[in-house]
Amino acid sequence: MNRDIKISAVRVTPIAFRDGPLLNAAGIHEPWALRAIVELESSDGRVGISETYGDEPMLRVLEQARALVLGLSPFALNAMEQRVRATIKPSPGAIEFELAPGSHTAKNAAKVVSTFEVAMLDLQGQIVGAPIVDLLGGAVRPAVPYSAYLFFKYAEHIDKPYAPDAWGEGISPGQIVAQARRMIELYGFQSIKLKGGVFEPTHEIACMRALHQAFPGLPLRLDPNANWSLETSIKAAPELDELLEYYEDPTPGLAGMAELAKHTPLPLATNMVITTMDDFRRGAAMGSVKVLLSDHHYWGGLRLTQTLARMCALWDLGMSMHSNSHLGISLMAMTHVAASIPNLTYACDTHYPWQEEEVIKGGRIKFVEGAVPVPTTPGLGVELDRARLVELHEQYLRCGVRSRDDLTQMRKYDPQFSGKTPRF
Amino acid sequence: MNRDIKISAVRVTPIAFRDGPLLNAAGIHEPWALRAIVELESSDGRVGISETYGDEPMLRVLEQARALVLGLSPFALNAMEQRVRATIKPSPGAIEFELAPGSHTAKNAAKVVSTFEVAMLDLQGQIVGAPIVDLLGGAVRPAVPYSAYLFFKYAEHIDKPYAPDAWGEGISPGQIVAQARRMIELYGFQSIKLKGGVFEPTHEIACMRALHQAFPGLPLRLDPNANWSLETSIKAAPELDELLEYYEDPTPGLAGMAELAKHTPLPLATNMVITTMDDFRRGAAMGSVKVLLSDHHYWGGLRLTQTLARMCALWDLGMSMHSNSHLGISLMAMTHVAASIPNLTYACDTHYPWQEEEVIKGGRIKFVEGAVPVPTTPGLGVELDRARLVELHEQYLRCGVRSRDDLTQMRKYDPQFSGKTPRF
Ligand SMILES: [Mg+2]
Ligand SMILES: [Mg+2]
Repeated sequence: MNRDIKISAVRVTPIAFRDGPLLNAAGIHEPWALRAIVELESSDGRVGISETYGDEPMLRVLEQARALVLGLSPFALNAMEQRVRATIKPSPGAIEFELAPGSHTAKNAAKVVSTFEVAMLDLQGQIVGAPIVDLLGGAVRPAVPYSAYLFFKYAEHIDKPYAPDAWGEGISPGQIVAQARRMIELYGFQSIKLKGGVFEPTHEIACMRALHQAFPGLPLRLDPNANWSLETSIKAAPELDELLEYYEDPTPGLAGMAELAKHTPLPLATNMVITTMDDFRRGAAMGSVKVLLSDHHYWGGLRLTQTLARMCALWDLGMSMHSNSHLGISLMAMTHVAASIPNLTYACDTHYPWQEEEVIKGGRIKFVEGAVPVPTTPGLGVELDRARLVELHEQYLRCGVRSRDDLTQMRKYDPQFSGKTPRF
Repeated sequence: MNRDIKISAVRVTPIAFRDGPLLNAAGIHEPWALRAIVELESSDGRVGISETYGDEPMLRVLEQARALVLGLSPFALNAMEQRVRATIKPSPGAIEFELAPGSHTAKNAAKVVSTFEVAMLDLQGQIVGAPIVDLLGGAVRPAVPYSAYLFFKYAEHIDKPYAPDAWGEGISPGQIVAQARRMIELYGFQSIKLKGGVFEPTHEIACMRALHQAFPGLPLRLDPNANWSLETSIKAAPELDELLEYYEDPTPGLAGMAELAKHTPLPLATNMVITTMDDFRRGAAMGSVKVLLSDHHYWGGLRLTQTLARMCALWDLGMSMHSNSHLGISLMAMTHVAASIPNLTYACDTHYPWQEEEVIKGGRIKFVEGAVPVPTTPGLGVELDRARLVELHEQYLRCGVRSRDDLTQMRKYDPQFSGKTPRF
């Protein structure tokens, strides 16, 4: 191996792709989801790739960080992290989206480290001829299971920017069961998550009951995204006890979750009250949260996710994986790290079925029985389709969305929508 | 890279090498120190090496573990760890040496994981043509600083098995200063540690004061190995405040250390009250220990040491490194991992100057200004000298020592020596 190989160029390309009218606690998804595709070019002519947030504050941070990785060896992950942590700070005044931890600018350094790390590991893998998972200590499973991630949704975006998606409306229990059935038919998922916090809890519980009846034996999860008061969460708990494998972020704050934990035997899961290592230090010892949803994009990378997994094992927390709207580069990075973690005890979340477009060669990634087979080819195992990258970038330039704003979008449907939480 | 390469053979060779009559809380070093040299042969004809404990209980555990690594890819570190943790358990009834955490059989699985991991990383590095540090995220420093590790000692072993070493007696303050001077001349160390807990605290403090006067500005440490009562430790603290950079394990137990912390502004360091991840979980949050001495041999490997470093950063602990009598393979493993850790805030301990023999090609490793330059050649950067391995193994067969026993050895000098702690 040539140890003189250096990172010689950094390219950041914001892209936009179609996203469904998916409802959540904050409002509704806009018709366009944003990501940034980061390419690190090496002095021997290779390209390592990564996928991360594409909102404007993140693009500015990536622009600032670009110089920090130039000239480094693709193997210099520790030096890269030192540089980034010394330089990249939170962005005062930036728009943050409470229920999407990846939008928090306090996590800027962790997000940049993660972005560069994935692309550097992709380069490393290409250089040595090994899949990234081998550079993370090797796979402990041949494929990584994901869950069917259901959303309440309208049939069509109010602005009608393109033809409606194939999923139709998803509001009634029957429609939610139909959505699950279609998703399971297409992907083979063996567990189901419903994004809640949208309608009255009684309605959402009715949906969970319908799922339970339609898919007996399949593990189910409900995630009200902290849109239920503590009282509502406690009241709902007995009805959910027999339905769920875990109860995800029903109510805001660590104190609320701790109080709720006293009222339910269900494991409480979170990607909202513990989203940084500092949160972990404060929160894990409390013992009220029992399942942590990791996300390499904002925790600080694949290796940091492995560290977090060790800490989860030590503090007796189960582990799953959180997701935002993403394409195949992120899915592959998630798959490599999840394959390396023995105590990833739950199928991972992914928004992947909600996307139709792709930026990688060969198009959409195939799932096998709800799982993504761990790549065995060098690096990430996927490559950029440059023509698609250009198209998705042009889509970004045209679409007008620059930061995710589910609240403003929701007010197009309901001008009275307050967005205040917890709503129920 | 050929992903079909497998580990095809495991060789474990116990060795013995000359060790000085070094005094400590438990007694005195025997004339022979034991290690085990582990070789993992790969199906493509390479040999990855590792150095670990060579006492009989550890040899039995390695014999049991041998089958667990056979047939694995050298990159399958996570699978190896899963197998070892599922199979290797503590050894009931084995001799354990309280002040040497590496002898605790509760750590058997961690010790085996570490042993195999280093040899597998050596293979990985050879296969891809990169030094181990590159597989750990790269070096953040070009060389790893070690400290001058001083011991009270006699001029000669009572059993006179070979000619006396070149260090002479080390008992009076003047002799300890002379020992430090010689060690610094030979190695260039820029900090000094004295293994205490041997003589009256007033004498040991006098030695520290003499060192302080002889080497103004050099950071000093004293390690009474939990041989001082809490009362003695508190009483000694004000005298040590201006002399030490940290105060290492003066008194036994986490509760004792916590109480002592209230009486001194000195950071308390330990390799005795926090020696496992479970200890860390319980002990770190107390905040009484401020510096952790890691040791990949018993914590569970190089990657585990990196995880530990992340946790030390998070819980605001400084980090240094513990050592037992060892040769160059261990020194290189320590150097690779220490080079990769940004928050390794103190020079590492090493017994290396007390050994004269070597088992690696090229003989003794050279220090530059008290530091070991980080290897840039593939793998560990050192190879076995097979002729020396045979000689040191024959020495093992002849020497009669099978488990470290400093207490019995001490009773040859002083039949009344009780070994009870804390003695002062
Ligand atoms: Mg969630
Ligand atoms: Mg010590």
